[in-house]
Amino acid sequence: MLEQSIIKDIIVAALAEDIGSGDVTTSSILTGEEMGGARAVAKSRMIVAGIDVFKEVFLHNDPDVCFGQSTIDGQEAMPGDVLVELSGRLAAILTAERVALNLLQRMCGIATMTRSYVEAVKGTTARILDTRKTLPGLRILDKYAVRVGGGFNHRIGLYDGILVKDNHIEAAGGIKSAVERVRQAAPHTLRIEVEAATLQHVKEALAAGVDIIMLDNMSLDQMREAVDCIKGRALVEASGNVTMERVRAIADCGVDYISVGALTHSVTAADISLKVTGNR
Amino acid sequence: MLEQSIIKDIIVAALAEDIGSGDVTTSSILTGEEMGGARAVAKSRMIVAGIDVFKEVFLHNDPDVCFGQSTIDGQEAMPGDVLVELSGRLAAILTAERVALNLLQRMCGIATMTRSYVEAVKGTTARILDTRKTLPGLRILDKYAVRVGGGFNHRIGLYDGILVKDNHIEAAGGIKSAVERVRQAAPHTLRIEVEAATLQHVKEALAAGVDIIMLDNMSLDQMREAVDCIKGRALVEASGNVTMERVRAIADCGVDYISVGALTHSVTAADISLKVTGNR
Amino acid sequence: MLEQSIIKDIIVAALAEDIGSGDVTTSSILTGEEMGGARAVAKSRMIVAGIDVFKEVFLHNDPDVCFGQSTIDGQEAMPGDVLVELSGRLAAILTAERVALNLLQRMCGIATMTRSYVEAVKGTTARILDTRKTLPGLRILDKYAVRVGGGFNHRIGLYDGILVKDNHIEAAGGIKSAVERVRQAAPHTLRIEVEAATLQHVKEALAAGVDIIMLDNMSLDQMREAVDCIKGRALVEASGNVTMERVRAIADCGVDYISVGALTHSVTAADISLKVTGNR
Amino acid sequence: MLEQSIIKDIIVAALAEDIGSGDVTTSSILTGEEMGGARAVAKSRMIVAGIDVFKEVFLHNDPDVCFGQSTIDGQEAMPGDVLVELSGRLAAILTAERVALNLLQRMCGIATMTRSYVEAVKGTTARILDTRKTLPGLRILDKYAVRVGGGFNHRIGLYDGILVKDNHIEAAGGIKSAVERVRQAAPHTLRIEVEAATLQHVKEALAAGVDIIMLDNMSLDQMREAVDCIKGRALVEASGNVTMERVRAIADCGVDYISVGALTHSVTAADISLKVTGNR
Amino acid sequence: MLEQSIIKDIIVAALAEDIGSGDVTTSSILTGEEMGGARAVAKSRMIVAGIDVFKEVFLHNDPDVCFGQSTIDGQEAMPGDVLVELSGRLAAILTAERVALNLLQRMCGIATMTRSYVEAVKGTTARILDTRKTLPGLRILDKYAVRVGGGFNHRIGLYDGILVKDNHIEAAGGIKSAVERVRQAAPHTLRIEVEAATLQHVKEALAAGVDIIMLDNMSLDQMREAVDCIKGRALVEASGNVTMERVRAIADCGVDYISVGALTHSVTAADISLKVTGNR
Amino acid sequence: MLEQSIIKDIIVAALAEDIGSGDVTTSSILTGEEMGGARAVAKSRMIVAGIDVFKEVFLHNDPDVCFGQSTIDGQEAMPGDVLVELSGRLAAILTAERVALNLLQRMCGIATMTRSYVEAVKGTTARILDTRKTLPGLRILDKYAVRVGGGFNHRIGLYDGILVKDNHIEAAGGIKSAVERVRQAAPHTLRIEVEAATLQHVKEALAAGVDIIMLDNMSLDQMREAVDCIKGRALVEASGNVTMERVRAIADCGVDYISVGALTHSVTAADISLKVTGNR
Repeated sequence: MLEQSIIKDIIVAALAEDIGSGDVTTSSILTGEEMGGARAVAKSRMIVAGIDVFKEVFLHNDPDVCFGQSTIDGQEAMPGDVLVELSGRLAAILTAERVALNLLQRMCGIATMTRSYVEAVKGTTARILDTRKTLPGLRILDKYAVRVGGGFNHRIGLYDGILVKDNHIEAAGGIKSAVERVRQAAPHTLRIEVEAATLQHVKEALAAGVDIIMLDNMSLDQMREAVDCIKGRALVEASGNVTMERVRAIADCGVDYISVGALTHSVTAADISLKVTGNR
Repeated sequence: MLEQSIIKDIIVAALAEDIGSGDVTTSSILTGEEMGGARAVAKSRMIVAGIDVFKEVFLHNDPDVCFGQSTIDGQEAMPGDVLVELSGRLAAILTAERVALNLLQRMCGIATMTRSYVEAVKGTTARILDTRKTLPGLRILDKYAVRVGGGFNHRIGLYDGILVKDNHIEAAGGIKSAVERVRQAAPHTLRIEVEAATLQHVKEALAAGVDIIMLDNMSLDQMREAVDCIKGRALVEASGNVTMERVRAIADCGVDYISVGALTHSVTAADISLKVTGNR
Repeated sequence: MLEQSIIKDIIVAALAEDIGSGDVTTSSILTGEEMGGARAVAKSRMIVAGIDVFKEVFLHNDPDVCFGQSTIDGQEAMPGDVLVELSGRLAAILTAERVALNLLQRMCGIATMTRSYVEAVKGTTARILDTRKTLPGLRILDKYAVRVGGGFNHRIGLYDGILVKDNHIEAAGGIKSAVERVRQAAPHTLRIEVEAATLQHVKEALAAGVDIIMLDNMSLDQMREAVDCIKGRALVEASGNVTMERVRAIADCGVDYISVGALTHSVTAADISLKVTGNR
Repeated sequence: MLEQSIIKDIIVAALAEDIGSGDVTTSSILTGEEMGGARAVAKSRMIVAGIDVFKEVFLHNDPDVCFGQSTIDGQEAMPGDVLVELSGRLAAILTAERVALNLLQRMCGIATMTRSYVEAVKGTTARILDTRKTLPGLRILDKYAVRVGGGFNHRIGLYDGILVKDNHIEAAGGIKSAVERVRQAAPHTLRIEVEAATLQHVKEALAAGVDIIMLDNMSLDQMREAVDCIKGRALVEASGNVTMERVRAIADCGVDYISVGALTHSVTAADISLKVTGNR
Repeated sequence: MLEQSIIKDIIVAALAEDIGSGDVTTSSILTGEEMGGARAVAKSRMIVAGIDVFKEVFLHNDPDVCFGQSTIDGQEAMPGDVLVELSGRLAAILTAERVALNLLQRMCGIATMTRSYVEAVKGTTARILDTRKTLPGLRILDKYAVRVGGGFNHRIGLYDGILVKDNHIEAAGGIKSAVERVRQAAPHTLRIEVEAATLQHVKEALAAGVDIIMLDNMSLDQMREAVDCIKGRALVEASGNVTMERVRAIADCGVDYISVGALTHSVTAADISLKVTGNR
Repeated sequence: MLEQSIIKDIIVAALAEDIGSGDVTTSSILTGEEMGGARAVAKSRMIVAGIDVFKEVFLHNDPDVCFGQSTIDGQEAMPGDVLVELSGRLAAILTAERVALNLLQRMCGIATMTRSYVEAVKGTTARILDTRKTLPGLRILDKYAVRVGGGFNHRIGLYDGILVKDNHIEAAGGIKSAVERVRQAAPHTLRIEVEAATLQHVKEALAAGVDIIMLDNMSLDQMREAVDCIKGRALVEASGNVTMERVRAIADCGVDYISVGALTHSVTAADISLKVTGNR
């Protein structure tokens, strides 16, 4: 489920950004009363994500827009497939088109890339995770699209997960001390994750009783060794330098999670066009 | 120049999105008074864009942060180059790090890709343009990064340019009628651009006295023919199916502008890391 | 067409400003359930503008308000004419009355004055333009009312038109240099307008290939001479010292546009009263 | 004193409305670093009001703007008088100029008209009042300008004064009942004012023990009679059909207050120009 | 009547505060489509206040929620009484539950305490008043709950009442001067209340012609003496050190109003639980 | 550390709520330039919390206010102790006084009650927790005050902790199924807490491998039995029916956490007054 009020705020802001003082072209040519239909059509293979967001953009701009045939988030679409049909006031549709497509194309792009990673680790126990490397303002949508693609979410923000990084450790004077401070100050509802760059760090983290150990930029050999050492006493996340080429080998090291920044920081927009099917 | 209040709003929202009710890790481990330094370092070749935005993120989170050596937007950076040095309260730096990097990496990514396109058309009179296929909420930054990369901006939104598309033309019953309506209703401060998919459209647009003709998804031959036909009586923009491979050939057709959606809809984040250089 | 979300924001803010912590009179006397009707009645001759905005104020305060007979924007109304009939919860009507009237009276006032100017130049090719001398927060409504009165809009804000003024010219070191800078930096979707106070300026502007020349505070003789000189190579706008007495003579000089600041900076509110027609 | 946060919100909104995605002219021509000076100069006789608001607009757009010689709210200025001198970054000054002038010209216009009314009743005990017929969003400024002009404020909104009008009376079944309801429900910190269209109403209002009686659209004879009848047992306000020609005669009837809608609903902007005094 | 837009803003903010990036528990376990019912049940004796606010919370989170049997604000409820029945999507109900209860429990707590004070002074002419010692952001709700409990509101904020306190008096150089300044500057729609700590102050306030005198922290004897002195020439408010034990004696002194800060600054939440009555 | 932007938003809103269109008393009597000092003085024994928030209120209203001697959050203050000294423009101080005190009195009230609970369980391993029963809009401050008093925070909102309650369990068809769903959908950064009303629930929760078990409204005997059964395999939280009388006995059962709703839902404001120490 997506948090509705956050989506609404994103859409309101996106429409305001694009429309500004008015869609001068459309409002000059159309009276606002002409009716028309349109179809969003896939122009490449993709995993669909964001159909409801796409619809909400049009509905927010004109509550009388209607929707016909529609795909569902998570489905695969092939070039030429109709993703959504809509109809209503043509002017309202034309004005909202770009914003709706901008959001849908990004979300489908994220879901499609995520699916590739998920399929690459199929058969292992590793889960594909996103990161906080999302686009400012769109995190909820970005992370939703990752879930649609079969991935899992790492913490949503700085507030719902504890991740003790090298700089935190250094500031605290060691893993033991950092973890103690966290235990004293943070809500007990949050697991404690610690970044480990070496096997020595892994051992210190285990000794400190952490819940999750993030293996940071380790080689495959190091990761295998770390997993052996941890022996299930903590969850294990692999992070850094994760590519499509390398992800399967990482998963085969036995880690529980693999986090992939590119899922959201380097998205290729899915190719989708809106074809108006005639004024009525 | 970037519109400061818009940037500030983007940064406020981005920090709020990431920090939420608080950076639970950092606030548990640090007192807030420890001082430290950090450097943003390029890890790949890139055109730098967004240095001021990057700095503003930290300053907004803590007005006492100081900056040392810094690159300037538009410079080329090579792997290992220091983009910015900063120092101040370590907790504030760590809390703002991700938001600052997310913005900088996107902006540098856009500028870097734009520069490639600009260099590909060097020696022709064609200008590389962006589109409205930007990320919702970040348009001003996306379009600024295009300029830094040597590109030019197409209209910022629906309010500062007239672009009569096929659906508008169909609704008006032809190019002539559509252009007349626009002339009657839109501010005279805006040029009139019309989309043309065929040479016939080009001729109708010329007859209607438009200012700019957009050649939509034409072949190279069609574009050459269109440019010949127009003979400088209108500005000419090529749009659709523009790739690095094809852009030079398009420019050689003699068009004035080439608009490239991928500059902003399919950005590869530039690889940049923030290295904390020690607590003090 | 009016940009709905902007109107809504204006209305929300205006109601909040007037109602504050509550309409203490009405909420003390009425239970909120009494029904009633009301009529907005013209008390002087006017061009009607803003009927939908007027209705929206009541609807925003109470979505159950109904409307009966109504005039349409652009109609002429005479003293005693009913502009709109409404009915619903009496308390909601009384609470929203002042805000609705404040907006309607201003908009009708603007449309009425605009119509006078438009009629004064009838038969010439000159169009009456507004300026940016609008009331802060109400620009979209002010400019809409000008259109209703038969006028045309100059640029809406600093973002959708280029107007190079004396100070810009001086800073750039001349018209030629200023126009070159604009051509290099501004979106090609915007026409370039330059202010000219003398015939020499007009010639320089023509040489620089500008799209529009604004004749600033010129005498009728100067304007005639400028129009002769320009010979259709640029659009011509007359500006400054435009009054009802002088506007026809200016139009007869052959200019394309005449901009009139008083249309929006010195509005006489149209005289309209809301008469409650009885509780039910 | 003006409520600072409200002023700030007005200014932020006004600048955003005008600047939108950017001042495309100024940012194309200037680098942002050129320095310059400017003077706001009166072009007609006026009572100055809004100097601080005017300054705040520039300061909000660029905190480094400096101010030199300045008039003070309430002073009279003659054509040619310098109202304020300012200096700073020329681009920032040019971008903020229009918004600053729009506000100042309105406020001076209000103060100037108010002063005329105040002088017309000099020597009587009547005070000139404003109404709620202000421009949406600008009420605090409009009412401040009235005070600067020597007038007094009626209630600011529906929340800080009780005004029982004919519709309220009819709904309550009479003045007596309406006043009883108000006494039961409204904070005792508010005076009770009742509208009276006839002498009979005046008597009923007196019997109900109201604090203020508003004589609504009465003739001079009726007003004199009402004042005689009230004999100081309530404050008396004259309202409706108040013009410069008639205001003295109304005051001579012995009323305590005269409310004038035109002070804020039909403002003639004071004529003020900003002259840039040279780049530096 | 409660000002709807203020309530809506409170609810929107309260839901956003609690839900943040999402109700991770509920959205993990429920699909969002399961239907269910629930009852708010009183667990102690209370005066009901805030039923509509409670309902609005659920409606805001999901407009399809339905309500069955419901108590009405002002009713007394006993342990076990059902306050409201609701049904709809179970996930939406569970997500909104805590915010709805937090508001209802506070409002019932305020109404219940107020009723105790009101009953304690029954038979006297004294009215129980609230103060501005409310919780930031909730003043409108707090003051509404006081009215539901049978109390009356003192001024809502600093804007709708004049209360001249010791510091104001000292700054003005005495009561007489302070009252004169207020009469000169404040809208005549507001009564003038002055704080008096001694009989001497009371006399000065009377001499200055104030409307209301607040007896600040006086002993019962002092209050009786003050009431005698004032003899109905001003309204009298007792303030300070008001407890359930002492309030009757204060009322018996003959004051018109008794203000009680504890009504809103030290609220005991009414004990109410929401029982889900089964999924459907 | 407190999240500064959230505090700022609370303060801005609280000042706007109280000041509205202006502090009519203060702005009538003072010019705004009179200087003065003030002291916040404790009138009962308390644990101080919120000093920085208190100061921020004044600073937000007037950045020139200065502070002298000040207590520190967490200190104990006795009647008569000066909590903070401040000086600056008297009008600004008087206008902000009530909002500043309203926040400080609540925060000190919370910290004081929390300290009592913390002291009651001294010597045991139990930590005192707050709940989400906070005042809408003030959660961050309420939870901060709990920490100052020596308590610990439970989850801040629905987003940073998983708490599977009876209704969730019923909807999922049992604890096992509910926990499985959460593991599949929620970020792995969050611990899983399950509510248990009986020993059977406790056993099911253990079998499902949950991290935290909340003993809901159990008797002391049941709690002891549950702790024995759990044997450290999960953290244990006691909830429901926690009073000062009973809290020690609960702690002695061996639970890790005891959550107390009253800490924030039934706060007695600490008694603090602001004494102005003279105009200067």
